[in-house]
Amino acid sequence: MRSNPLPPLLYADTLSNPDQRYFSQVDVHDPFIAFGVGPRRISVQNALEFGRIKKARTFDEVLSLETWRARAEQRWPRRQIGVAEIITELARAYRIRAFRVADDFPAALFLKLRALGVRLELANGPLFPEREIKSPREAAAIREGNRLCAVGFTVTEKILRAAKPRGRQLFYAGQPLTSEQLRFEIESAMMAEGGQANGTTIVAGGDQACDPHERGTGPLRPHELIIVDIFPRVTRTGYFGDMTRTYLRGRPSEAQRRLVAAVRDAQLAALKVVRAGVDGRAVHQTVVDSFTSAGFETRRTPHGSVGFFHGTGHGLGLAVHEPPRMGGLVSMPLKKGAVVTVEPGLYYPGLGGCRIEDVVQVTERAPRMLSSHPYDWEFR
Amino acid sequence: MRSNPLPPLLYADTLSNPDQRYFSQVDVHDPFIAFGVGPRRISVQNALEFGRIKKARTFDEVLSLETWRARAEQRWPRRQIGVAEIITELARAYRIRAFRVADDFPAALFLKLRALGVRLELANGPLFPEREIKSPREAAAIREGNRLCAVGFTVTEKILRAAKPRGRQLFYAGQPLTSEQLRFEIESAMMAEGGQANGTTIVAGGDQACDPHERGTGPLRPHELIIVDIFPRVTRTGYFGDMTRTYLRGRPSEAQRRLVAAVRDAQLAALKVVRAGVDGRAVHQTVVDSFTSAGFETRRTPHGSVGFFHGTGHGLGLAVHEPPRMGGLVSMPLKKGAVVTVEPGLYYPGLGGCRIEDVVQVTERAPRMLSSHPYDWEFR
Repeated sequence: MRSNPLPPLLYADTLSNPDQRYFSQVDVHDPFIAFGVGPRRISVQNALEFGRIKKARTFDEVLSLETWRARAEQRWPRRQIGVAEIITELARAYRIRAFRVADDFPAALFLKLRALGVRLELANGPLFPEREIKSPREAAAIREGNRLCAVGFTVTEKILRAAKPRGRQLFYAGQPLTSEQLRFEIESAMMAEGGQANGTTIVAGGDQACDPHERGTGPLRPHELIIVDIFPRVTRTGYFGDMTRTYLRGRPSEAQRRLVAAVRDAQLAALKVVRAGVDGRAVHQTVVDSFTSAGFETRRTPHGSVGFFHGTGHGLGLAVHEPPRMGGLVSMPLKKGAVVTVEPGLYYPGLGGCRIEDVVQVTERAPRMLSSHPYDWEFR
Repeated sequence: MRSNPLPPLLYADTLSNPDQRYFSQVDVHDPFIAFGVGPRRISVQNALEFGRIKKARTFDEVLSLETWRARAEQRWPRRQIGVAEIITELARAYRIRAFRVADDFPAALFLKLRALGVRLELANGPLFPEREIKSPREAAAIREGNRLCAVGFTVTEKILRAAKPRGRQLFYAGQPLTSEQLRFEIESAMMAEGGQANGTTIVAGGDQACDPHERGTGPLRPHELIIVDIFPRVTRTGYFGDMTRTYLRGRPSEAQRRLVAAVRDAQLAALKVVRAGVDGRAVHQTVVDSFTSAGFETRRTPHGSVGFFHGTGHGLGLAVHEPPRMGGLVSMPLKKGAVVTVEPGLYYPGLGGCRIEDVVQVTERAPRMLSSHPYDWEFR
């Protein structure tokens, strides 16, 4: 906790900017001004949003953009009035000598405000460091996101069980089963329960899965590993879930079995060391070591990497990727209350890819699981 | 067209940043570096994305983040290497003396790059002004978005026809019909056809609709106006549709009829004046005048505004709100090829709200309609 930090200033919408969603606790689709004065949170809304945001009662004060624009026009009668002038007028009226702003604050507005004499200090890290520590209410919201993921896995398993291998294809309801169809079934089942995946769900089979962020297209095939990575946003709260399972319909080879077992072993090894005070980089190293000792090699090729070439996990909350990171690059000690994914994976074109991902909250002992779904992966 | 503009530099993801989506023509969920060198477009991807983005072939060159990080580490052995150092190293290698960046470029990165000696020029307006003019292919993508909206309206009308008024509620399939349920039916029908509305669809009845961005909750009632505003994103292309219709199940009052007729008249009046060279503010004034002469008053109250208190329309493309604006505040001449919504509305608590929205492409004559759906609104 910093002593007496500067009041925050934001200019963003709540859909693409998690800091603004955190500060506002309500959805607004277009950028708007919000700032703090001591413990009070104030936002400025145009006529289109004013009544709705006032009723939502998530701000201590909602100001009319038109009123403050008129005030700025009086001060600078010969100027085109924009957001910078309105903020400057607000800073004077509320006697705020300086604001702190996020590192991703818009550069043009930053420079204009400085030119108008408003002092700004970059957060140089998270704008709200407290976002990293999840309250019980936030943990419950993330757990709800993961419950939606499990809804998606249940649908996936039902369809894979019902699908019939015929030659090099899987048939479902008389049609070749595709990544697109399975994605649709997963996402519409989650939508019915209050979550939005926005077409982002990964359903990638065979070599497609070896690009970890390939969403997957076309027919799914028997005897191939299929990665299903679901990260829906809970519409009501804005929090995300994020889980991955890997499946196979048909008969796995010995090499596929070893791959899946190695990933699950690595995940269990990582889960054993996640706790408050441990460096995220050390958790990542546990996974690297686990793969190395199981004989799985990582290397870069001209067309991409093979083996294990992404981080072990990331913070999860109002953004699907947020601090802390657990990877090889940076040292980040895990804080009590942080929520992170644990998602080792292995990818070898020709053999396929496997990733298994769960979500935990960091405690002083064993982490608290915020996700729950079986690990069965073979469907004959 | 500017002569010899500086090469663009972007650091953003493609989901929340339409400039990056425009430049990249592929979806990447996390921020990444992209820049131009003459006509060539180059991006820098980490191992997780590298193979997928290389295969997508939308960039002339895909560079490995890890390789360029290593180069930067050699140049600054005692520094923590971040995005700014990597961009600086790239600028040297590609002999780029200065970049142009978007006004919403992250402020912290902007200042770090400047401190490292990289010259940056803010776009001071759109980064890609050509985004405002839609190619035939882009117009077709927007038309596809609007086709999805029409799918949503068709579902809405089917459900409203089937719904039974009973007392102060509408019953559908034996249950009270709610905004949430209708939103779900609309969005899942669009999802099945390749679009994502992400829970944003407005289904707001009665006084709820008087806050134009209120999404709507709870039971829908007979004899009340219901605003349905749908703005899905086409998953494949990233372009949006955006249309609104207003409905009523039951018997409208004379005042409701007059309200709906006034909104449609205002829309037709606006559509008559939209053409290349006309000021967006003049189109807006046409709507204002139409409402005034029909006797509909606009005023601000302590709880919000009543009457017509939003803009007449906005540009539509890879963002749901983009230039040009057609409103009372700024003068913006419409350019040939621009795509705009035309969406007058009237809102009076006690009576209800009505908005009707279509999408057109600006030409030198009558605008080209990019949306199509009937205007029937009474369902008995």
